[in-house]
Amino acid sequence: MKFLEKLNSSVNCNQSLICIGLDPDTSLIPDNISLEDFIRQIIEATSDLVCAYKINFAFFEAMGSEGYHFLHAARSLIPRHIPVIADAKRGDIGNTSRAYARAIFEKLDFDAVTVNPYMGYDSIQPFLEHSERGIFILCRTSNPGANDFQNLQCLKDENKTPLYLLVAEKSRQWNIHGNVGLVVGATCPEELGLIRKQCPEMPILIPGIGHQGGDVRLAVVNGTDSNGRSAIINSSRQIIHASRGDDFAIQSRQAANKLRKEINQYRRPF
Amino acid sequence: MKFLEKLNSSVNCNQSLICIGLDPDTSLIPDNISLEDFIRQIIEATSDLVCAYKINFAFFEAMGSEGYHFLHAARSLIPRHIPVIADAKRGDIGNTSRAYARAIFEKLDFDAVTVNPYMGYDSIQPFLEHSERGIFILCRTSNPGANDFQNLQCLKDENKTPLYLLVAEKSRQWNIHGNVGLVVGATCPEELGLIRKQCPEMPILIPGIGHQGGDVRLAVVNGTDSNGRSAIINSSRQIIHASRGDDFAIQSRQAANKLRKEINQYRRPF
Repeated sequence: MKFLEKLNSSVNCNQSLICIGLDPDTSLIPDNISLEDFIRQIIEATSDLVCAYKINFAFFEAMGSEGYHFLHAARSLIPRHIPVIADAKRGDIGNTSRAYARAIFEKLDFDAVTVNPYMGYDSIQPFLEHSERGIFILCRTSNPGANDFQNLQCLKDENKTPLYLLVAEKSRQWNIHGNVGLVVGATCPEELGLIRKQCPEMPILIPGIGHQGGDVRLAVVNGTDSNGRSAIINSSRQIIHASRGDDFAIQSRQAANKLRKEINQYRRPF
Repeated sequence: MKFLEKLNSSVNCNQSLICIGLDPDTSLIPDNISLEDFIRQIIEATSDLVCAYKINFAFFEAMGSEGYHFLHAARSLIPRHIPVIADAKRGDIGNTSRAYARAIFEKLDFDAVTVNPYMGYDSIQPFLEHSERGIFILCRTSNPGANDFQNLQCLKDENKTPLYLLVAEKSRQWNIHGNVGLVVGATCPEELGLIRKQCPEMPILIPGIGHQGGDVRLAVVNGTDSNGRSAIINSSRQIIHASRGDDFAIQSRQAANKLRKEINQYRRPF
């Protein structure tokens, strides 16, 4: 099944635009539980409330060789009908990107990946070739440093356009297999609206609500498409670390459900 | 020891600006030898001819969990006085970059890393904090797609400047610990010259000679500093796969030595 179909199916089935980021901070996990059990219980408690999960590779890589085992385990614990995004932000010259794409889609069997556009088309093309998988290109990120380069005004055909909108434009051109999406932070709702206008149908992965301060309502209003879909709103710590006690799974379910309902009340009718 | 001291020490000691990229293509390794032995023999045959080694993470990640073991093994095989660059092209929001920095510098003990600037300062700052390690920021890459964004003319203080030069300028500002370098492809010698002019002392990692077609002479002339140093000229396949036969180690030594001499003849007196 194509990534977009799988995503729309889980959006409809769970009536949800939430993506839970499985980025555990090991210091916030209850003492008497293993990391693998923690992740399993979070997934079991939330998998009927999300449209996707996102796994941040850095947290697992920071653990050394056992991290790879956990990464594999975490991915395996997620029910097959829920798409899983590898938040890896990769991008390299052609044959290297090809190796990364193999690692992420074939060895680890993720449904989608985040990639960095700085190196241009041939750094992303090996990912795009996997036409059943989703490729989320970093466009306007949620962090403060995003301003350093992404909002620079660039000259293109005599017009001034910010770099992030040129990235959105190129991403649209590269979308010949219908598997391209964008990453846009909830911390910059104005840019999110402009990007959505330029790419009416593309899925947009939206991090930055919660801890980073992005506004949920604007993320939904500016980020969804005309059918109230195609926005994947990520939340990590706010959900998975809703409690440090033994009730962490129940609390994570409640936090996820609360956010899901809040998001749905801002969605256009669907 | 600070990264730059370690680099200059190996440049002087081995009279070399060569960095060998340990990116083995497993289909080009002689049948009767393991990947680990292949890498060991390449290192033993060349470690007195290089100023650094570079290990491409993608090739190892593409192998799955055993790749991590090989990555660790490959790094361990390199003599401690030769700097090793993790070619990982990472970059993410602050706490994620912090996890990557820990993985690369602490768990794997690399001397330097390549990072992607698209997400701006706070995505790079956690790497910079490791003041003893080198941070090579992608500036103008060697691949064809580099043109898509890196050469866009940007408006800054009413002036038109290509994006890659703004990245070089910012990188210089961020270099408060003296541990920042840039990545510039040998395939764009003109840009290399402009970047060297803007950053007279910064080390520049230069991929793109050999297979990618970059000119060795121009890489040296435009890439070195006023002392004929601070250019780290990478070669991978041309050296490590110089032969597919049992003589691969000897042949890799000969290829490395030939390139080392060619580079040295173009260097300013040192």
